[in-house]
Amino acid sequence: MTQRIKATVSYDGTRFSGFQVQDNQRTVQGELQKALMMIHKGQTIRIQASGRTDAGVHARGQVIHFDTEIRMGDYNWRKALNALLPDDVRIIDIAKADEDFHARYSVKQKQYKYFVLNAPEQDVFKRHYVHHVPYKLELDRIQQAITAIEGTHDFSAFCSASTGVKGDKVRTVYEAVCEKQDDMLVFTFTGSGFLYNMVRILVGTLIDIANARKEPEDMARILESKDRHLASKTAAASGLCLWKVDY
Amino acid sequence: MTQRIKATVSYDGTRFSGFQVQDNQRTVQGELQKALMMIHKGQTIRIQASGRTDAGVHARGQVIHFDTEIRMGDYNWRKALNALLPDDVRIIDIAKADEDFHARYSVKQKQYKYFVLNAPEQDVFKRHYVHHVPYKLELDRIQQAITAIEGTHDFSAFCSASTGVKGDKVRTVYEAVCEKQDDMLVFTFTGSGFLYNMVRILVGTLIDIANARKEPEDMARILESKDRHLASKTAAASGLCLWKVDY
Repeated sequence: MTQRIKATVSYDGTRFSGFQVQDNQRTVQGELQKALMMIHKGQTIRIQASGRTDAGVHARGQVIHFDTEIRMGDYNWRKALNALLPDDVRIIDIAKADEDFHARYSVKQKQYKYFVLNAPEQDVFKRHYVHHVPYKLELDRIQQAITAIEGTHDFSAFCSASTGVKGDKVRTVYEAVCEKQDDMLVFTFTGSGFLYNMVRILVGTLIDIANARKEPEDMARILESKDRHLASKTAAASGLCLWKVDY
Repeated sequence: MTQRIKATVSYDGTRFSGFQVQDNQRTVQGELQKALMMIHKGQTIRIQASGRTDAGVHARGQVIHFDTEIRMGDYNWRKALNALLPDDVRIIDIAKADEDFHARYSVKQKQYKYFVLNAPEQDVFKRHYVHHVPYKLELDRIQQAITAIEGTHDFSAFCSASTGVKGDKVRTVYEAVCEKQDDMLVFTFTGSGFLYNMVRILVGTLIDIANARKEPEDMARILESKDRHLASKTAAASGLCLWKVDY
């Protein structure tokens, strides 16, 4: 009889071509399935994740599930997988789950963080984990604009044209905040779900507002327009981190 | 007429074979001198640093000096060098210095930090910048032992046998402290100077004390013995960072 297992996974996205398996590319899903295959003596174990992440995007709390016939304690599952995984992917939590738990369909809310280093020079220790902006950003302009994002909206203006998702672009953002920590601007977005590149386009637009290339009032206008061309360009993948998935 | 220039340099030591130039190796000094050579149209400019750092060791505040006939403002020096340097080395401060300033001989004190991640699993985002210890470390045992390091001592027991330094192994440590920040133990050592691998051997010994393989009282005994064999093994290079050099 198979048992469903839920795991929380952390990865440094720098050297990955994203989460999802692709031919001849190093992916997080590929590495996880390779490790599971070794534990299952060559059998292919397919994992399901809460969602994909793009090349260069990081995760502290990605959640996956898989089904297995192997019986092991939680501690042994963690140890066995981490021993087989490369050092840029770690299982940080793993446990048996109900058979109706689904890493993607059972999601209640997701939280992303986006890190902008606003300093004259890049920080060598953070360079893979931030988007570096050397010019002046005004936090109060961000604060004026960011509240417009909260609530239920059609986020078409903040969705990459290359999305495969057809139809409904309505999502609910429960919370959109920006905090200054030394020379870092930390954006936190919590919502029911997010469109393709949505957080990165939102941050790109907030950066233009902070730098006075756009006005704080433009945020609500761009949302209403549903026009991707009115929003700013997609901010760098390196600043984005899938922080937490709640079920 | 030449002008002496002082610069503060930050680097991620992960992909460097240490600071000092070596044949066919990627070194911090090599990269800095390459950038300076480009600015000086092929002329070799030799830099002097406050001291070397080993392969894998990082710096937030390494200090160097060099002499040049080129006249540029401080802002332009920083911009020109950073444009030519690889992304794991950054000039964070640069300014004209007195002609008798010397990055090595004028040092008043140096500060190193050493980061120990004491958690069940490695953190993918910190893996190049910490030494990971998965087993239990007792902070109060470290606190009992660490004060013995402060003061003027012959640190022969905490000096790598492969040091080129002959003679005097007496150094003064002004401050040796350990703070817990979440699951990180942050060691800070401030002193007049440090022997080869001294901080890493001190931390290796403190880890053994924290894990009850050695007793807190052993620290003073090992110091007095001047015997490298009584101290513990050298802790990983990745945890060490040259934090600050004062003149």
